[in-house]
Order: sequence, then structure tokens, then C-alpha cells
Amino acid sequence: MALDLAILTIGDELLSGEISDTNTRRIAGHLASRGWRIAEARTVADRNADIAQALITMAGERDAVIVTGGLGPTEDDRTARAAAEAFALRLTPSNEALVQIRAYFEERGRVMAPANEKQALLPKGTEVLPNSCGTAPGFSLNYGDTLFYFLPGVPIEMETMLLEQVLPRVQQKFPKAAALRERHIRIFGLSEPKVEELLTSRPMPPGIELGFGVDYPLVIVKLRGSDEALLDRMAANVERLLARFVAARGDQSPAAYMGELLRGKGKRLALAESCTGGLIAQMITDAPGASDYFIGAAVTYHNKAKQAWLGVPPELLDTHGAVSAPCAEAMALGMLRTSGADLALAVTGIAGPDGGSEEKPVGTVFIALACRGGDPVRVQQFEFGGDRHKVRRMTAHMAIDWVRQNLLQS
Amino acid sequence: MALDLAILTIGDELLSGEISDTNTRRIAGHLASRGWRIAEARTVADRNADIAQALITMAGERDAVIVTGGLGPTEDDRTARAAAEAFALRLTPSNEALVQIRAYFEERGRVMAPANEKQALLPKGTEVLPNSCGTAPGFSLNYGDTLFYFLPGVPIEMETMLLEQVLPRVQQKFPKAAALRERHIRIFGLSEPKVEELLTSRPMPPGIELGFGVDYPLVIVKLRGSDEALLDRMAANVERLLARFVAARGDQSPAAYMGELLRGKGKRLALAESCTGGLIAQMITDAPGASDYFIGAAVTYHNKAKQAWLGVPPELLDTHGAVSAPCAEAMALGMLRTSGADLALAVTGIAGPDGGSEEKPVGTVFIALACRGGDPVRVQQFEFGGDRHKVRRMTAHMAIDWVRQNLLQS
Repeated sequence: MALDLAILTIGDELLSGEISDTNTRRIAGHLASRGWRIAEARTVADRNADIAQALITMAGERDAVIVTGGLGPTEDDRTARAAAEAFALRLTPSNEALVQIRAYFEERGRVMAPANEKQALLPKGTEVLPNSCGTAPGFSLNYGDTLFYFLPGVPIEMETMLLEQVLPRVQQKFPKAAALRERHIRIFGLSEPKVEELLTSRPMPPGIELGFGVDYPLVIVKLRGSDEALLDRMAANVERLLARFVAARGDQSPAAYMGELLRGKGKRLALAESCTGGLIAQMITDAPGASDYFIGAAVTYHNKAKQAWLGVPPELLDTHGAVSAPCAEAMALGMLRTSGADLALAVTGIAGPDGGSEEKPVGTVFIALACRGGDPVRVQQFEFGGDRHKVRRMTAHMAIDWVRQNLLQS
Repeated sequence: MALDLAILTIGDELLSGEISDTNTRRIAGHLASRGWRIAEARTVADRNADIAQALITMAGERDAVIVTGGLGPTEDDRTARAAAEAFALRLTPSNEALVQIRAYFEERGRVMAPANEKQALLPKGTEVLPNSCGTAPGFSLNYGDTLFYFLPGVPIEMETMLLEQVLPRVQQKFPKAAALRERHIRIFGLSEPKVEELLTSRPMPPGIELGFGVDYPLVIVKLRGSDEALLDRMAANVERLLARFVAARGDQSPAAYMGELLRGKGKRLALAESCTGGLIAQMITDAPGASDYFIGAAVTYHNKAKQAWLGVPPELLDTHGAVSAPCAEAMALGMLRTSGADLALAVTGIAGPDGGSEEKPVGTVFIALACRGGDPVRVQQFEFGGDRHKVRRMTAHMAIDWVRQNLLQS
């Protein structure tokens, strides 16, 4: 039996262009890793009628629905009221919920605001789901054959309650749910059609489904099946076939995989970033423990910083400009010298929207990699397409790819 | 008449936990800025039956539906086929679409792969929507009273086509759609209940709706109405009332607003980042034109870098540790000296998950701000809650807040 699950996220801010919904990805990730299929995700605004209509439609259609958002203390948090309306239940103060909210404030030595009492008003007969890191308790109820779990929208609270409260309950309710597992391999340097062409030339064995996704500029190869050993074998096959284009495995980031290689070789990296403005350093330090292999970065946005911190000669900047192969090389060598790193990577370019010229249009980027031991500095010019955001992202991934390639070859 | 719009995003990767859907936010932003209401957003996987069912349900319920994803060349791109099934139309090769795809490759001197021919297979009788920056043409069709617009899922292609092709068509179809406008004010340093309490003590005039949102750690105040002048007056009122907590207006980021203040005062900023690892620099350089006021950053992740680049004395590190007030102060002063900036900001802390101790738990952060002219360095210790991601984000926003406060007072 394959479980049929759905996600409902609630909030005006998700439909006004202000913020992206990230809860769906978080929830879906935890469900998918248990082999459960998410059939749909829906978002509605903070309106009683819209919330109630979505709840009623989803009841009956799905085995379980995880709902997030609208449990806060303010007037536009309306999920509990809408659920009561949808399922014709009375909204009543829950003593259990009130005790939990009070305890939350007391433990932190804070005074509970009167507005927080509203968070204890829940549809009658629901089960209260404790919230260990926030004020909003969740709740769960059945309607027909469908289980509903209501969680707050704050990602950290939602995720903690999903793991502590919801998943164990779902697992208990559906002990025999078929477990489809996934393996992911992240590819850099090949287009999606090219990856598909390479992989579909060798058919997958029965029981393994092949899928593709794009997280620009990465292509994600997805293998799905229930036989873990077979999945591992097929993932290893894919990695052998695509070899040097494999940027990361599983849900690791390319920066974290690069970090693992650096740690394995006992080498340390330093950066000189111009057009990426700290993005590469941020991607690297997003991984816990990066201090083992990452010395640091000089974000030399201004030319004066390139001179002062990296020793790039002013004449070089006058002659060739900051966006040039000689400047990238001087940045990398300057960083190698000043940091004591084993590898020093430098990027300089024009991310746009301004600053481009006929000779050096927006998207022109130079990457340089210098290594301790006297090998010649590797330098290359690129012309990346797209807007500022895309140019910066592509540059960062290309730079990380260079370090990975270097480590795999050395 | 208020237009009733919906968004449907298609893709396995959106329901597997791999990536967050960002297209909904982009589309919603463009629609909301024109005063159009988005009633719901839905996501389904790459399965013909699921796509077709969602299309049929949404037809009749909404005035217009914008669909993204599943128009690529690979086997798991199934939107055109599913739309043909849903609306009982034949799938036929569109000569117009084929000409556009061919032209895309020819203009770039590339050879068209056979797989790309599939992208010209469209439901019979649809209007082709040209794609100026990718291979996948979009298409539009009517079903009953509902207009459907199908766009590729790649954000840059989707957004370009939305602006060039879809919005002018919607505007033409519904010339009298009521235009609800929004004003947003981003708040840092007050909780959502506190912001609501401050604002609801003075009721809004009729015709203005007040809403709230959270983009951690920011609270977003939203004013909605159709009278632009009244909206501007009320937004100015909110800004006066919340004064120093206003981190940014409209869809500007706090880092961009801080940059505007720096530019206005002719001052330049430099950073010394440790635990944030480049995040603050990345946020600042995300804004085009940041080179006017941003000199650069030293991401001194390793203690050696703190010594070498910022002149932090090794004895200081031995005595107080890198996560300490003296170290933050020395980092800021070192950066002020070496960069020639007017303001130098330093952060050092423990983002976790490892590295905490009883004395300095995870979340301990020191921020220091040094100014040219001899004012004493401002230093403060914080204990931020949450995981690595949250600690880094909170630290970055607090640091940017410090610079903003300094500029508003000086």
C-alpha cells in the first residue's frame, strides 16, 4: 500500500510574492526519505473560507494531510477557527494547550501576553501536539478516513514538531506503508538532456525508476525504488558513468562534498572573491565543521581591497582592469601567499546589471586557482548568461567544481 | 471585479524535498503588484493523471491559472500531454513552436538535439507563447471561462515569459480588474505580537487592510488597499510609529536599505566576518551597485586569518578566545585600519552545531562596530537561539541593524 499524503500551507505572505514557501520542501524531504509519496501541495491565504474549502476538498482524497501556518497569536492567524468551521466542530479553550503555552513562557522567565491565550482555542475533540520550541501548540484530528495534522508555520517549530509528534503517529497508523527510497546524485557541467541521454542508453533494471531535476546550475539524477541494495548499486553505476561531473551525492551540497575531499587530503583552502561578494565563502561555511579545511576569504569588492589585502599591483589594475586574467591570477597568488593555504581560488567578473562593456559584457568572469608547490596557476575566462543572481550562482558552482577537480586529480 | 487567479507548479522535485518552489513567489509578486489576488497555489508531481486532475479542478473555479514546469525535452516533462488529456485535445506538432525552437539553437550556433523536437508537441488549437531565453515555448488555452497559461519551470525563462507574454494578455482580457495595491514595511527587533499590538492601538481608516508576515528574523507589516495616496500616508504613519525598527521598505532588503543610507552619507563599509562566513558580505553584494559603498570583507574563519589579515594578537586569542568581546573589537579595529573604510563591522561567534561550551553555548555571538574618527568601539554579546542557519541569519541581520542605527544617528 502506498500512502497518499498532501501538504497544505497557509499564509497571505506565501501568495503575495513576499516569501517563498520553504516548509513544503522540508516536510516533503522528511516524508520522501521514509518512502511516502506526496501527491500534492497547496497554499491558500489567511481567509477562513479558503482554508475551510481546501480542508474539505483534501479530506477524503488523501490518507493524511499536514497543515502549516496560521496558529500564531495575531488576528490574521485563522487556521484553528477555519478547521472548526470546515469540520463543524466547536472552537473551545483547551486547558492542555493553555498549560503548555504558560509553561513555555515560565521556563523562559517571560510574561505571557494576553494575545497568546487565543492560541489555546482549538476545535473540540482534537489531540493537542506539544510544541517544544515555540508558543503555538499544534493539533490533530480525523475527518472521515483522513488524518489532519496542524503545525505552526515557523520553520524550526514546524520541523521539530513534524519529527517529534507527526511522523511517529503516521508511522503507527500506517505500519505497512510501502517504503520507496531515493538516491540523488548532483551533476555539474552537463545539461539535463545530455545527462538523460547518457543514462537512458543503459536501461535501469525493473524496480528502479529514473528521474531528473534541475537546481540551477546543477542537474539532479534521482533513482527511486524499494530495494536499498539495488538502489545503492545503481547509484554507484550512475556515479561511475558520470564520473567527473558528479558534484555531490545525496542531499549534500557541492561545497560540502568539496570540503569532505579537502578534509580527506588534509588540505586547506582560501578564497579571493570579487563579483561573488562572499557567496562562495557562505556556501562553504554553510557546512558545519568547515573550519577544518577553510581558512577564510578576502571579499575584495573594491579595487583598493585587491591592492591592500592581496597585493595586486595598481599598474596591473590600470593596464588590464580588475576583470582580467592577470588580475584573477594575482588575486589567487596573493591569497596563497597571505593565507598559508594549500589551494587559493580567486574569482573576478561582472555580475551586472551594470558595469558591462562591449569588450567585457555582463557575465564575463575570470576564475584562477593557485596551488602550493609551484604548479602554474590555472586561469580561465567565462561568459555566463542570465541575470546578476544567475551569474553569481554559476560562478560559485564553477569555482567549487575547479577545486573538486583539482583534488580528484592530485 | 476582483480577479481570481491561481498558480499550478509541476515537478517531482518540488514534492521530494529537493528544492523549494520559488516560482510561486515570483509569479505572486508580479500579480500582487498589479493588485490581482492569488486565491491558491498548488503543486503536483510529474504524473499525467495528477496534472490532468489539478487542471480540471482549477478550470471553472478560477478566472486564470498560470502553470509552470514540465515543458522540457526529457521524458518526465509531461505537462503538454496531460493538458491535452485533461481538456480532450489532440497532441499535435506545432510548426510555429518548432520554428521557434530551431531559431533558438541557430542563433546560438548550436545543434538542436532530437529530444527538443518533443517540445513542439502541443495540444491542438493552443496559442504558442514565444520563449526568448530558452528552448521550451509556452502555450495558452481557454477551457470554459478559465484562461490557462503554460510556462517552463526554469525561473528566468518563466519570469521573462510571464512579463512579456502572460501579463499583457491577462490585462487585456480583464481591463477593469480592481487594482488592490500593497505597501510593505520590514521590521527588525520587535516580535510579531508586539508589532501588531503597537499598530492595532490606532485603527486603520476604512479601505486599508492591515496584515503581518514573518521572514525570520524580520516581521513584515502589510497594508492593502486601492487608494494609492492613502496607502502612502498610512505607510508613512507606520514608519513614524515604528521608527528605528524599520529595517527596509517595500521589497528592498535591509542590506540594500543600509547601502542606500551609506551612499547618501558618502560613507564606506568593510566587514570582518567569522561565524557568518561571508553571509553578510553576500547579502550586501546581492544589491547591484554595492561597490559604491562596500569595500570588502575579510572572512577570517580560521584564527590564523584573524591574526594575519586583521592583526588580532595571538596573546589575545590565547587569553580570551576567538569568540570574545576583545577579539570582536580587535577584528573591527584591524579592519578599519587595513581597509580605509569609514565603518568597520566585525562578528565572531559559535553557529553550531559543534563548538559550544557551558560558558559559551552555541548561539553566543559578539558584534563590534568601529568608526573612523575615534569614537569608542561598540561591542556587545548576544545569545541567539535556534540552529546553525538561524544563528547565522540572526547575526547577519543584527549586524546590518547596527550599521543602519549608526547611520541614522550620525
